[in-house]
Amino acid sequence: MQRDALMNANVLITPIILAGGKGTRLWPMSRSSRPKQFLPLTGDLSLFQQTLLRLSDKNIYNDPIIITNNDYRFLVAEQALEVGVNLEAILLEPVARNTAPAIAAATILAAKNNKNQLVHILPSDHDILVDKAYLKALNSAKKAALNSRLVTFGITPNEPATGFGYIEAGEEENYSTNIVNRFVEKPDLANAKKMLETGNYYWNSGMFMFDASSFLSECKKLASEVFEAANKSVANAKKDLDFIRLEETSFASSPNISIDYAIFEKTSLASVVPSPIIWSDLGSWDAVWKNGKRDKNENLVRGQTSLNNTKNSLIVSEKCHISVDGLDDIAVIASEDAIYVGALSKAQNVGAIVKQLEANSKTAALTRTHKTTYRPWGGYSSVLNGERFQVKRLFVKSGKKLSLQKHHHRSEHWVVVRGTAEVQIDERTMILRENESVYIPQGAVHRLYNPGKILLELIEVQTGSYLGEDDIIRIEDEFGRE
Amino acid sequence: MQRDALMNANVLITPIILAGGKGTRLWPMSRSSRPKQFLPLTGDLSLFQQTLLRLSDKNIYNDPIIITNNDYRFLVAEQALEVGVNLEAILLEPVARNTAPAIAAATILAAKNNKNQLVHILPSDHDILVDKAYLKALNSAKKAALNSRLVTFGITPNEPATGFGYIEAGEEENYSTNIVNRFVEKPDLANAKKMLETGNYYWNSGMFMFDASSFLSECKKLASEVFEAANKSVANAKKDLDFIRLEETSFASSPNISIDYAIFEKTSLASVVPSPIIWSDLGSWDAVWKNGKRDKNENLVRGQTSLNNTKNSLIVSEKCHISVDGLDDIAVIASEDAIYVGALSKAQNVGAIVKQLEANSKTAALTRTHKTTYRPWGGYSSVLNGERFQVKRLFVKSGKKLSLQKHHHRSEHWVVVRGTAEVQIDERTMILRENESVYIPQGAVHRLYNPGKILLELIEVQTGSYLGEDDIIRIEDEFGRE
Repeated sequence: MQRDALMNANVLITPIILAGGKGTRLWPMSRSSRPKQFLPLTGDLSLFQQTLLRLSDKNIYNDPIIITNNDYRFLVAEQALEVGVNLEAILLEPVARNTAPAIAAATILAAKNNKNQLVHILPSDHDILVDKAYLKALNSAKKAALNSRLVTFGITPNEPATGFGYIEAGEEENYSTNIVNRFVEKPDLANAKKMLETGNYYWNSGMFMFDASSFLSECKKLASEVFEAANKSVANAKKDLDFIRLEETSFASSPNISIDYAIFEKTSLASVVPSPIIWSDLGSWDAVWKNGKRDKNENLVRGQTSLNNTKNSLIVSEKCHISVDGLDDIAVIASEDAIYVGALSKAQNVGAIVKQLEANSKTAALTRTHKTTYRPWGGYSSVLNGERFQVKRLFVKSGKKLSLQKHHHRSEHWVVVRGTAEVQIDERTMILRENESVYIPQGAVHRLYNPGKILLELIEVQTGSYLGEDDIIRIEDEFGRE
Repeated sequence: MQRDALMNANVLITPIILAGGKGTRLWPMSRSSRPKQFLPLTGDLSLFQQTLLRLSDKNIYNDPIIITNNDYRFLVAEQALEVGVNLEAILLEPVARNTAPAIAAATILAAKNNKNQLVHILPSDHDILVDKAYLKALNSAKKAALNSRLVTFGITPNEPATGFGYIEAGEEENYSTNIVNRFVEKPDLANAKKMLETGNYYWNSGMFMFDASSFLSECKKLASEVFEAANKSVANAKKDLDFIRLEETSFASSPNISIDYAIFEKTSLASVVPSPIIWSDLGSWDAVWKNGKRDKNENLVRGQTSLNNTKNSLIVSEKCHISVDGLDDIAVIASEDAIYVGALSKAQNVGAIVKQLEANSKTAALTRTHKTTYRPWGGYSSVLNGERFQVKRLFVKSGKKLSLQKHHHRSEHWVVVRGTAEVQIDERTMILRENESVYIPQGAVHRLYNPGKILLELIEVQTGSYLGEDDIIRIEDEFGRE
């Protein structure tokens, strides 16, 4: 028997976290501007933050590499900062090409100083209980990966789920892993039941572990276009603040293909580590319910609610009070601007509903933006929209500065309600304290800075004939935006 | 046969509208600060406004007298103004004593110049279709009332409803009315079915018609304490702006009793006019649904909604978008700050839910106030509440002035976003135009006035250690408030 691989501090693993997904199946909470991985769905931390913390044992892991896209780069950076996790790199996909080229590019980056670097690929939006079974699976995967196996984590199924792909386990190997016989697409219920009975099938979790050189040589052999695209896009990548921008033309030349199709279904090196772990992809509201802490009536509630004679239900509120009476198997999900009500057991339909909303210009916005928008310096939420005015709440973090900017079509009034602001308007600079206000005329060059130690909060009243976010001329920006 | 009484312009009827009810059965739309009668439930106008318009034919009716209470007096005045209906009087009950003393007092007032004045008593929150059957019932009632009968309107039942009291019709009289045999309390289903079968029972609508002298002499005889209390409270009433305040001590000395118990169940003069009319008391959400225009799936929707595979449901939204999937018989009612979800057919439970919310200090406010509060000069809505600040949207009608006031614990920033404001702060008076702002320091005496022709809108940012509405010292108020 091999020695315990996991706690061998001489061989650390580099986590590669996939955080670019735009899932909308948890609408109206998840939006394309703030997808599931960045939401606090199962506690106070987002799923992405929980993923970071799960990988923070420095006896096992190096700092993680994050793959995401331009839209989420500040969210990734801020959420990592919030939980005090240092990142090795934030890699930005210039266009979406599915998982194969993204994972290849991140692996190439991870292997820069060590061509045999072990990497652990994992989604950022899954819920996993770290227990003995989990650590045992991780240990087996590491041992197999150290022996040049490309390891997938196969979750031991506890029901005939039709929402996942399956992996058929073949002959047992050392390291408590099995050879992969084949991958199976999402089955119908009858086939799912059959597979559950045999005990040889596992859910494809989308988690992998391998050493970089074994993976990359398989990638070169089995998916050469993917490999070339990834390799060139890394070679020509541009460093931009804390971000690494993969070069677009070469990255875009990759086939749009998943890592399963491109490599794992073809390679003879694939192993599966059977993982009897507490795991959920939280892929729909009923999965959130199944995975959460329910009360004695089998209800899961978050936010302000009151329930009467209600059971087996999921009630989630961001702001409003929700009162539910006499229902069974109901999902009520209320964000700031939209409410979903449906049978909880049919919550998989949410994806289709989002598509319908998107197809309708009147409701399309409901799938995109939340009221609160996060920026590298803090953020803002829309408070009131009038015909020729709008009111926003701005929050600026300690020490942060907005871009030097001007607007052609609107003037702004700022009232400081918390903290201290340093405001530059044309040539003047002034300090505003709590309860002080300032007026920024249309066309004036201005900048806002929080010189204090606490969060700065302002109420901004904008007036003008056009109030779109795109009426902004940035003269100078420390976050490199134009 | 008598000549047509209704269109006899020599005998006009004075409507007396009961508009003091605090119904909460349509929560979360109806609140004690804005009860059902003042909500636009079945169209763009409130039920109270629809009631006013139903009584606006000057060939039939005098200007109406409204009975309400102090809290709703400005709502009554404003809503009447909005639909251009002149009111004879707005009578304010100093305390709630049920319908008998209120109706007696209003009748005494109506009879001031004509002791035989015909009056039509009616609730302000019912939905009635004005058609031939309605006018015919009105005509019969008028004829009977002209002949000293005390007439109740009995709605011809179309189902065995258990939510109403019933009237048993006896011998037929002239005028197409019947003698009242007896009043029946709200029945159980079995009894309701029996009554429906006989064809002799009618729903007690709470509408009455009589001549003042016949009613008042019966009142004096059968409910002398009620009569005395009403009589004295009118004699000692105080005129206050457009309102008549019934004198409190005498009014409060009346028994707390309904007009049915006090008079109609006892008098030998009671007639019922069988009224096969389209009528609803909109007493619960399922009644609103039953009474409204439903689509081909039997859904009634108001506000922004999208429905999939949903039928027999009521979806009402004030602000949010509501998406409903795959449900039957569901009620989703979303106000600005609360959402009710329950089986539509069980919507009668809402009353019990409101009681539960009221009993809980955390949720009690949900039953009282809406975000928008109406004042004689306009109103305000709460936009954002922070720890030491809040943001409000104020609207001031053309020509209206707020009280001269000061606050001990807060300062205010005003930004004009529409219209023109005249602002007095201590000794200074200034004009603010759109996009101009002013700061009102803590303790400064100030007043806001809209000198313009259009609505004035401001964003008010309050900051301070205490932000309650009761931190207001009124130095001068043209609406007579202290």
